[in-house]
Amino acid sequence: MKTSLPSFKIKIRKKKNTPPGASPGSLNISADAEKPKISMHSYNADQLELNMPVTVKEIIDLMKTKTDRVHWIDIKGFGDKEMIDQICLSFNIHRLEMEDVLNSYQRPKLEEHGDHLFIVSRMFSHTADLLLRNEQLSLFLGSNYVITMQENGQDLMDPVRNRMKLGKGYIRHQGADYLAYAILDAIVDNYFPILESLGEKLDELEDELFIKPTRASLQKIQIIKRELILFRRTTFAERDKINDVLRTNTTFIKDATKVFIRDTYDHTIQVMDFVESYKEITASLMDIYLSSVSNRMNQIMKVLAVISTIFIPLTFIVGVYGMNFVYEDSAGNKMPLNMPELNSPYGYVGVWVVMVLIVTLQLWIFYKRGWLEKT
Amino acid sequence: MKTSLPSFKIKIRKKKNTPPGASPGSLNISADAEKPKISMHSYNADQLELNMPVTVKEIIDLMKTKTDRVHWIDIKGFGDKEMIDQICLSFNIHRLEMEDVLNSYQRPKLEEHGDHLFIVSRMFSHTADLLLRNEQLSLFLGSNYVITMQENGQDLMDPVRNRMKLGKGYIRHQGADYLAYAILDAIVDNYFPILESLGEKLDELEDELFIKPTRASLQKIQIIKRELILFRRTTFAERDKINDVLRTNTTFIKDATKVFIRDTYDHTIQVMDFVESYKEITASLMDIYLSSVSNRMNQIMKVLAVISTIFIPLTFIVGVYGMNFVYEDSAGNKMPLNMPELNSPYGYVGVWVVMVLIVTLQLWIFYKRGWLEKT
Amino acid sequence: MKTSLPSFKIKIRKKKNTPPGASPGSLNISADAEKPKISMHSYNADQLELNMPVTVKEIIDLMKTKTDRVHWIDIKGFGDKEMIDQICLSFNIHRLEMEDVLNSYQRPKLEEHGDHLFIVSRMFSHTADLLLRNEQLSLFLGSNYVITMQENGQDLMDPVRNRMKLGKGYIRHQGADYLAYAILDAIVDNYFPILESLGEKLDELEDELFIKPTRASLQKIQIIKRELILFRRTTFAERDKINDVLRTNTTFIKDATKVFIRDTYDHTIQVMDFVESYKEITASLMDIYLSSVSNRMNQIMKVLAVISTIFIPLTFIVGVYGMNFVYEDSAGNKMPLNMPELNSPYGYVGVWVVMVLIVTLQLWIFYKRGWLEKT
Amino acid sequence: MKTSLPSFKIKIRKKKNTPPGASPGSLNISADAEKPKISMHSYNADQLELNMPVTVKEIIDLMKTKTDRVHWIDIKGFGDKEMIDQICLSFNIHRLEMEDVLNSYQRPKLEEHGDHLFIVSRMFSHTADLLLRNEQLSLFLGSNYVITMQENGQDLMDPVRNRMKLGKGYIRHQGADYLAYAILDAIVDNYFPILESLGEKLDELEDELFIKPTRASLQKIQIIKRELILFRRTTFAERDKINDVLRTNTTFIKDATKVFIRDTYDHTIQVMDFVESYKEITASLMDIYLSSVSNRMNQIMKVLAVISTIFIPLTFIVGVYGMNFVYEDSAGNKMPLNMPELNSPYGYVGVWVVMVLIVTLQLWIFYKRGWLEKT
Amino acid sequence: MKTSLPSFKIKIRKKKNTPPGASPGSLNISADAEKPKISMHSYNADQLELNMPVTVKEIIDLMKTKTDRVHWIDIKGFGDKEMIDQICLSFNIHRLEMEDVLNSYQRPKLEEHGDHLFIVSRMFSHTADLLLRNEQLSLFLGSNYVITMQENGQDLMDPVRNRMKLGKGYIRHQGADYLAYAILDAIVDNYFPILESLGEKLDELEDELFIKPTRASLQKIQIIKRELILFRRTTFAERDKINDVLRTNTTFIKDATKVFIRDTYDHTIQVMDFVESYKEITASLMDIYLSSVSNRMNQIMKVLAVISTIFIPLTFIVGVYGMNFVYEDSAGNKMPLNMPELNSPYGYVGVWVVMVLIVTLQLWIFYKRGWLEKT
Repeated sequence: MKTSLPSFKIKIRKKKNTPPGASPGSLNISADAEKPKISMHSYNADQLELNMPVTVKEIIDLMKTKTDRVHWIDIKGFGDKEMIDQICLSFNIHRLEMEDVLNSYQRPKLEEHGDHLFIVSRMFSHTADLLLRNEQLSLFLGSNYVITMQENGQDLMDPVRNRMKLGKGYIRHQGADYLAYAILDAIVDNYFPILESLGEKLDELEDELFIKPTRASLQKIQIIKRELILFRRTTFAERDKINDVLRTNTTFIKDATKVFIRDTYDHTIQVMDFVESYKEITASLMDIYLSSVSNRMNQIMKVLAVISTIFIPLTFIVGVYGMNFVYEDSAGNKMPLNMPELNSPYGYVGVWVVMVLIVTLQLWIFYKRGWLEKT
Repeated sequence: MKTSLPSFKIKIRKKKNTPPGASPGSLNISADAEKPKISMHSYNADQLELNMPVTVKEIIDLMKTKTDRVHWIDIKGFGDKEMIDQICLSFNIHRLEMEDVLNSYQRPKLEEHGDHLFIVSRMFSHTADLLLRNEQLSLFLGSNYVITMQENGQDLMDPVRNRMKLGKGYIRHQGADYLAYAILDAIVDNYFPILESLGEKLDELEDELFIKPTRASLQKIQIIKRELILFRRTTFAERDKINDVLRTNTTFIKDATKVFIRDTYDHTIQVMDFVESYKEITASLMDIYLSSVSNRMNQIMKVLAVISTIFIPLTFIVGVYGMNFVYEDSAGNKMPLNMPELNSPYGYVGVWVVMVLIVTLQLWIFYKRGWLEKT
Repeated sequence: MKTSLPSFKIKIRKKKNTPPGASPGSLNISADAEKPKISMHSYNADQLELNMPVTVKEIIDLMKTKTDRVHWIDIKGFGDKEMIDQICLSFNIHRLEMEDVLNSYQRPKLEEHGDHLFIVSRMFSHTADLLLRNEQLSLFLGSNYVITMQENGQDLMDPVRNRMKLGKGYIRHQGADYLAYAILDAIVDNYFPILESLGEKLDELEDELFIKPTRASLQKIQIIKRELILFRRTTFAERDKINDVLRTNTTFIKDATKVFIRDTYDHTIQVMDFVESYKEITASLMDIYLSSVSNRMNQIMKVLAVISTIFIPLTFIVGVYGMNFVYEDSAGNKMPLNMPELNSPYGYVGVWVVMVLIVTLQLWIFYKRGWLEKT
Repeated sequence: MKTSLPSFKIKIRKKKNTPPGASPGSLNISADAEKPKISMHSYNADQLELNMPVTVKEIIDLMKTKTDRVHWIDIKGFGDKEMIDQICLSFNIHRLEMEDVLNSYQRPKLEEHGDHLFIVSRMFSHTADLLLRNEQLSLFLGSNYVITMQENGQDLMDPVRNRMKLGKGYIRHQGADYLAYAILDAIVDNYFPILESLGEKLDELEDELFIKPTRASLQKIQIIKRELILFRRTTFAERDKINDVLRTNTTFIKDATKVFIRDTYDHTIQVMDFVESYKEITASLMDIYLSSVSNRMNQIMKVLAVISTIFIPLTFIVGVYGMNFVYEDSAGNKMPLNMPELNSPYGYVGVWVVMVLIVTLQLWIFYKRGWLEKT
Repeated sequence: MKTSLPSFKIKIRKKKNTPPGASPGSLNISADAEKPKISMHSYNADQLELNMPVTVKEIIDLMKTKTDRVHWIDIKGFGDKEMIDQICLSFNIHRLEMEDVLNSYQRPKLEEHGDHLFIVSRMFSHTADLLLRNEQLSLFLGSNYVITMQENGQDLMDPVRNRMKLGKGYIRHQGADYLAYAILDAIVDNYFPILESLGEKLDELEDELFIKPTRASLQKIQIIKRELILFRRTTFAERDKINDVLRTNTTFIKDATKVFIRDTYDHTIQVMDFVESYKEITASLMDIYLSSVSNRMNQIMKVLAVISTIFIPLTFIVGVYGMNFVYEDSAGNKMPLNMPELNSPYGYVGVWVVMVLIVTLQLWIFYKRGWLEKT
C-alpha cells in the first residue's frame, strides 16, 4: 500500500531572506547569488542605443551625456553588494526599497517616493514538471529612466525590446512612463497562457474524473487547488497594484499613458474573472471525485448483491436434500415423512425446476429494479 | 466502463486574439473574418431612411447631408482592415477601443471618451446543442449617431428596428441616446428567456435526481453549474455597466433617457436575483444526487441483508443434518448420542417446522425495524 | 421505483408580461384580467366616507370637492386599459411606473417622482397546499392621496380599514403619509406569521429527520430551502426599500411619520435576523438527513455482519462432517485417519459443544465492541 | 427505532405580543403579567437612599425633592397598564418605545429621543436544562435618571448595586451616564461565563465525537449550533449598539464616560472573536461526527470481510468432499476418476493441511494490508 | 475502542482575570504573580546606559537627569500592586489601560491618550508539545520613553537590544518612536517562523493523509484548524492595529518612522496572505481524509466481493452433488432421472471442468472491470 509520493507540493511559503530581528533595511545577499548582468537601452524617436555597462559609474555617465533620451537599465542577478549600494546612492533609493528588491518574495505593490515610483510585479511560469513558479520583477520609474531588477530567471520583456528595435507602436515616441507601462502590460499579458493551461488541466481532470478516477486524480485536484490559491492571491494583488498606479497623483505618469494602463487594468479584471470561475469549478471537482468513487462502490456492491441473493437460496435448497434423514430404519421400517422427495423418481428434476423458477423470478425482480443496468 | 464523453464543456476561457507582448492597440484581424455588412438607419420623427453603404466615405456623406437626423450605423463582420482603420479615423475612435471591438471577449463595460461613449455588451443565446453561447456587441454613442459593431452571429435588435419602422413608442421622437438605450434594453430583455430556460433545466434536473439519478445527471449538474458561472459573471458585469451609464456625467445621455435606463437597471437587478437563487439551488442539487446514490446503495444492501440473514441460519441447520455421524458402528453397536434426530420418524418434519419458525421470527423483526418498507 | 412527484416546485421565475423587445412603457393587459373594483376612503379626523366610484372622473370629482381630506383609492384588478390610461393621466404617473404595476413581478422598491412617491411591496401568503405565494401591492403616495393597486388576491389592509373606522390610533388625525406607513407596516407585520410557520416546519422536519428520515424528508428540505431563498430575497429587498423610504428627502413624508417608519424598519431587520438563522438551520438539516441515512445503513450492516460472522464458521464446521471420506474400504480395511470423529460415540455432541463455544466467544467479542447496542 | 425526543429545541422565533395589524404603539399587556415591583436608588457622592415607591407619583416626588442626586428607577414586571401609561407621560416616553419595552423580543438597539436615550439590551442565562435563555433589559437614560425595565427574571445588576453601596469605584461620584454604562458593562461582562460554558460544551463534544459518537452527539451538535446562532446574532447586535452609543453626539453621555464605554466595546469585540471561532469549530464537529460514523462502519465491514474471505473458500472445499459421486457402481465396477481422494487413507488429513495453508496465506495477506490492525 | 485522548485542545477561551461585575479599572493581581524585574536602557547616538532600577522613583530620577536620551523601561512580571499603581501615577496611565495590561488576554489594539500611545501586541511561540501559545506585550510610547510590560515568558526583543548595543542600524540615532517600531517589527517578524512551522505541519499532514490516514490524522487536522483559527484572528487584529498606527495623527510618531511602519504593515499583509492560503488548504485536508477512508473501504469491499462472487456459485454446485436423491430404490428399481451424473465415470472430472470454466469467466470479467487492479 505504500506509495512513494513525488514532491508535488508547491512551496507557497518562502523564507524571508532577512532573519527575524535583523535591522530593517539591511541588505543581505546570499553567497551564491549570481553576478549582475546589466543591459541599458537609451532611445528617443530617432535613435536607439544598446550598451552593456559594468559599473554604476558607466550608467550615470551615459545618462548624463544623453539627457534627451529615455534610459532603460535592466539588471539581472544581485551578487554584487557594492554595486547594489551604489545604485541606491545614485538613484536615491531607500534601503527598505532595495531590501524588497532583494528579498524575492514580495506582494505586487506600488510605492511612491520623492523622485521615483517603486513597483513590484510577479511573473508566473510553468516549471519543467508543469508546476507554477513565480518570480519577482522590481521596477523603478524616474522622470527619464526605468530600472528593472530581477534574479536570473525567465525574461518576459523580449516583446518590449523587439517593438523598441522595430520602432513599432508608440513606444519610441513616448517617455519612460510608457516604457514602464509596456513592461507591466507584458507581465499581465503573460497571465493568459498560464490561465489557459490551468483551464486545460481542469478540463482534462474533469474528463478523467468522469471516466476513470484514481487516487492520482485526487492528488491532481489538490495540486491544482494549491496552484489556484497561489495564482489568485498574486493576481489579486497585481490588480490592486495596477489600480493604485491608475489612481496615483504622481507626475511620473502622464494622463495619455493612463489610458493604456486602464486597458491593462481591464485585463487584470478579466484574469480575476477566470480565476474565480476556475476556483468554483475546482471546488466541484472534489464532489465529482467523491461521487465517482462511491459510484464504483455501488457497482461492486450490486454485483455482490445480485450473485449472493441468487445463489444463497439455491444453496439452501440443495443443502436440504443433502440431509441424511433415514427413511427406512435398520429394521426395514419405512418412515414415510422423512424426505419422501428423495425416493421420488422425479425428485431431482423437480428440484431443478424449482431452482430455475426461483432464479427467473429473482432476475425479473432485479430487472424491474434496474439492478441489471450497467450504470 | 469506458464511455465516450460528448464535448460537454463550455469553453469559459477564450484566447485573446492579440498574442502576449503584441504592441497595444494593434488591430489583428483573423484571415477568415467575414467581410463587413453595413446597414444605416437615418431618422427623425417624420422620416426614416435605410441605406446600405459600402464605404466609410458614403457613411460620412450621408451624415453630412442629413444633419437633422439620428444615424444608426450597424456593422456586422470585421474582415476589412482598411475600413476599420477609416472608421477609427472618421469617428475619432482610439485604437485601444477598436482592439476591444475586434477581440471578441471583453467584459461588459462603459468607457467615456471626448466625443463619444464606448459601451461593450454581451448577448447570450442557446446553441444547437442547448448550451450557452455569448457574443459581444460594441456600441459607440455620439451626439447624433450610434455605431453598433459585432461579428456575424445572432441579432437581437430586430424589435428596435420594428418599432423604428412602425413609429411605435418614443423612439422616433428621441435622440441617439434613446436609441442606444433601446439597444441595451433589448439585450437585457433577452436575458429573461435564457433565465427561464435555465430554470426549466434546473426543475427537470431536480425531478430526475429524485426519481432516477444516473451518472449523466451528474454531468448535467456540472454543465448547468458552468453555465451559471458564466452567466452570472457576465450579467454581474452588465449590471455594473448599466449602473455606470446611469451615473456618468456625460452630456451624451439626457436625463429623460436616464429614467428609462433606470428601468433597464431594475431588470438587471432582477436577473441577478434569479441567478443567485439558481446558484443556491444548483448547489443543493449535488447534495440530492449524492443522497440519491447513497439511498440506492441502501436499497441494495437491505435486500442483500434480508436475504442473507434469512438463509444463512437455515443453511447452517440443513448442514447439520448433512453430517455423516455414524449411529451404528460396523459391529452394529448403537451410538445413540450421534444424531438421533435422523432416525426419528418426525425428524424431517421437525426441521422444517423449526426453519419456518426462524423465518417467521426474522420477518417479524425486519418488519418492526422497517426493513421491509420500500423506501 | 417510479414515484409520481407532486408538483412541489415553487415557481421562482416568473414570466415578464412584456415580451422581450416590446416598446418600454407599453401597457399590455392580459385578456383574462379581472375588471377593476375601486373603493375610495376619504377621511379627516372628524369624518370618514367610503365611496365605490366606477370611473376615474368620479374619483377626481370626489377629490376636488373634499380637498381637506385624505383620499385612499384602492384598485383591485387591471382589466380595463382605458381606466388605467386615465389614471396615468390624472395622477401624472409615468408609463414605466404603470408597466411595473401591471407586470406582477417586481422587486420591492421606492421611486421618487415629481409629485408622488411610487412604492412596490410584496405580500406573502400560504397557498392551499401550504406553499408560499407572493403578490404585489403597488402604492402611489401624493400630497393628499394614496393609491393602492393589486391584482385580485389576498388583502392585508383590513386592519388599516378597521382602525380608520374605529378612529383608533393616530390614523384619522394624520396625513396621507401616515396612511401609506400603516399599509406598509401591515404588510411587514404579515411576514411574522409566515416566519412562524416556516419555523414550525423546520422544527417538525428536524424531528422527523432524527426519528424516521425518508426520501420525502429530502424533498421537504428542498422545498423549504426554495421557500427560504424566495422569502429571503424578497424581505431583503423590502428592508432596503423601507430604508430608502426613511432616507429619502421628499416632502411627502413628514418627520413625525418617519419615527413610525423607523419602527417598521426595525421589524424588517428582525425578519432578516430570523431568515438568516433559518437559512443556517436548513443548511444543517441536509447534514442530519445524510447522517441519518448512513446511520441506518450502519444498522443494517451491523445485523448482517453479526449474523454472517456467527454462522459462517459454524456452516464450515458442519460442512466438514458432511464430507464422505471412507474409513473402511470395500475390502474392509480400516483407514483410521479418515474422519475418526464420525465413529466416536460422542462426536456429534462434541461438535455441538465446539459450536456453542464459538458462538459464545463471538457474542462476547461483539458485546465488547458495542455491536450489540441498539444505536 | 422510535425514540422520544426531549424538547431540545431553542425557540428562536418569538411571537410578537402585538397581533399583525394592531395599531402601532398599542400597549397590550398579557393578563398573567406580574405586578410591577419598583426599587429606586437616589445617590450622590455623599448619600445613597433606597426607596420602594409604589406609584409613579411617589417617584416624581422623590425626584423633585432631591434634584442634586442621580435616580435609578428599576421596574420589574409589567402587569399594571395604568402605571405604564403614567410612566410614559411623566418621562415623555413615546408609545413606540414602550411597545418595544413590553414586547419581550427586540434586537439590542439605541434610539435617541429629545430628552432621553432609549437602550435595549439582551441578557443571557442558562436555564435549568442547560439551554440558553435570553431576556430583555430596557433602559432609559435622562439627564439625572436611569430607568431600567424588565420582566421578572434574572437580575445581573447586583454588582452595580454593591459598588454603589460600598462607594467603590467611581460610580457614586459620576452622573447618570456612568450608571447606565455600569449596567451595560455588567450585561456584557455576563457574556463571558456563557461563552466559557459554550466552549466547555464544545470541548466535551469534540472528545465524545472522537471516542464514542452516538446519535445523541448529533443532536448535541445541532443544539449547540442553534445556541451559537442565537448568541451570535444577539451579541452582534449588542456590539453594534455599543458602537452606536460611542458614536452618538448626545449630551446625555459625557466624554469621560465614553472612555469607559470604549472599554465595553472592546469586550464585545472579544466576545465576537470567540463566537466566530466557536462557529468554525462547530462546523468541523459535524465532519468529525460523520467521519467517526463511517470509521465504525469500516471496522464492521473489515471484520465481516476477514471472516467471510477466510471461511468461504474453506466451505467450498468441504462441500467438494460432500459430493456423492459413486466410485463403484452397483455392479462393483470401479470408476477411478470419481473422487479418488475419498478412498485415500490420507485424504482427510490432506484436506486439513490444504485448508490450514489457505488460512495462513490469507492471514498473511491481511496482515500485510493492515486489515488486522485495530484502527 | 477506548483511547485516552491527550489534552490536545488549545484553550482559545481565557478567563478574564476580572470577575463579571467587578468595578471597571480595578487592578486585580493574582497572588502567584511574579515580582517585577525592571531593566532600563537610556541612550542617544553617543551613549548607551543599562540600569536595573527596583523602584519607580529610581526610574523617574534617571529620566530627569538624562533628558537628552531615549528611555526604554522593560518590566517583566506584575506581582507588585504598589509599583503598578505608582507607574500609573508617574506616567499618567488610565486605570483601564493598566487593567488591559494585567488581564493577559487583549486583542492587539492601539489607544491614543493625551500624553502617550498605548499599544497591545500578541507574541506567538510553540510550546514544548508543539502547540501555539500566545502572550501579550503592552507598550506605552511617550515623547522620550517606551515602557514595555509583559508577564514572564518569552522575550522577542533581544535583536533590538543587540542592535542598540552594536549601534547598528538607525536605532541609536532615532527617537522613542523608532524604538517602538523596532519592537513591533520584531514581534511581526516572529510570525514568519510560526507560519513556516504551520506550513510544514500542513505538508506533512497532507502526505500522511495520502499514504496512511488514521484516526490520529483526523485529530491533527482538528488541532491545526484550531491553531489557524487562533493565529488568524490574532494576526488579523495585529494588521488592523499596525494600520491604525500608520493612520494616527499623533505627534508621537514621526513621518520618517512611518515609512518603516509601512514596511511592517506590508509584512502583516503577507502573513495574512499565507494564513488565508493555509486555511483553504486545511479545509481541503478534511476532504482528503474522508476520501482516503472511503477508498480503504472500497478496497476491502472489492476483495470481499471478488472472493464471494467466485466461491458462492461453486459452493452451490458442489452442494447439488451432495444431495441424496436415490437412483435405485430399495427394491432395486432404477430411477434414471435422479442424478445420473453421479453414476457417470467422468462426473467428478466434469464438475471440476465446469467450475474451472466459471472461475475463469469471472476472473476475466473482473479484470475487464478493473477490479483486480490495486487502486
